[in-house]
Amino acid sequence: MSKTLIIGASGQIGNIITQTMAQTNEPARALVRDKSKLSHITGKQLEVIEMDLEGDFSAAFEGIDRVIFTAGSGAKTGPDKTLLIDLWAAKKAVDYAKDAQVKQFILVSSIGADDPDALESNIKPYLVAKHMADDYLIKSGVPYTIVRPGPLTNDKSQGKITIKRPDSRAEMAIPRADVAKAVMFILSKDNLNGKVFELFNGTYDFDNVLVPSA
Amino acid sequence: MSKTLIIGASGQIGNIITQTMAQTNEPARALVRDKSKLSHITGKQLEVIEMDLEGDFSAAFEGIDRVIFTAGSGAKTGPDKTLLIDLWAAKKAVDYAKDAQVKQFILVSSIGADDPDALESNIKPYLVAKHMADDYLIKSGVPYTIVRPGPLTNDKSQGKITIKRPDSRAEMAIPRADVAKAVMFILSKDNLNGKVFELFNGTYDFDNVLVPSA
Repeated sequence: MSKTLIIGASGQIGNIITQTMAQTNEPARALVRDKSKLSHITGKQLEVIEMDLEGDFSAAFEGIDRVIFTAGSGAKTGPDKTLLIDLWAAKKAVDYAKDAQVKQFILVSSIGADDPDALESNIKPYLVAKHMADDYLIKSGVPYTIVRPGPLTNDKSQGKITIKRPDSRAEMAIPRADVAKAVMFILSKDNLNGKVFELFNGTYDFDNVLVPSA
Repeated sequence: MSKTLIIGASGQIGNIITQTMAQTNEPARALVRDKSKLSHITGKQLEVIEMDLEGDFSAAFEGIDRVIFTAGSGAKTGPDKTLLIDLWAAKKAVDYAKDAQVKQFILVSSIGADDPDALESNIKPYLVAKHMADDYLIKSGVPYTIVRPGPLTNDKSQGKITIKRPDSRAEMAIPRADVAKAVMFILSKDNLNGKVFELFNGTYDFDNVLVPSA
């Protein structure tokens, strides 16, 4: 059975994904800087490893078939960490994934990463880092799917989304729990490689909008 | 005659390059945010234009054959400007250069940009930005030459360099004036595309170390 590496497993989205995989007994390796942050999650098929994304974490890729990269300093940390984690750690993860010949690399990016110049925004440096990480993955040759959620909320999962960008920023919000569900949905499919999805709260089932119609 | 766009013309290295081209009457367009910063330089073949590298500066590439990108926030500005100028403005310049089908793009990068993980350094975020900009140019299809000088000084030009990395960081320093001379030397050659040079103060003439032996 395919084994998934979750990078950024103690982040808010990573945490939900790790918990889900532990509950459903899917083989997973959760990479965190501090194990104690995942002490509330246990699973027979869950392995938790401690590594620093600012160092060499290539060993985490041994025996791994699929990768979820959801590590991020967040738009609110300093841009030095944005450069070191959102850009550089993502770049290194892509290189390691290429060496390990993984079958799928799912990158959690951000709405706006397609065009950091589009709006005057104080998170433009963050969007530049996200754009360049996305671009590096796309050109890497590693089979990828990129998701770009709108502004994240801690609202309860609706289990419904849309991938069509709404007119106003207010409508773009999406619960982290639904981003996690979308990532798990993509992980279960083999035909979503090479896709980039924007994700917003909506009224559609995942398979209605994420799976190309035949 | 071939016309060169100098991006970052009011920076310390860009200033020397602009001054040299004005004196030798080589057709050049100097791009600056504030024209008054170049008011001390005049030349019959020198055109000075005002544009903001954080916006759209594609118009600067009209009629341009060669590009020198030496804009940089410097390792000491905040990492937000590093992301916006050293990385994002460089990325956009490469895109514009590609559209304009320029024959040569010379990028002034930094020693250490090849491997930001190599040393524990507080300029690692800066080196990450430089690495990703270099990487973007290399993969772009635009004919490029990248120079990665050691720590810059304001010492007088020696007119001599080396491209072999010295053992100690203390020996790596190089006068900005010699980096400018190296860039001008590369600009005068058509056979240095696809090369990446580290630059340090040394004892060799430019054509001894920068030109491949026949």
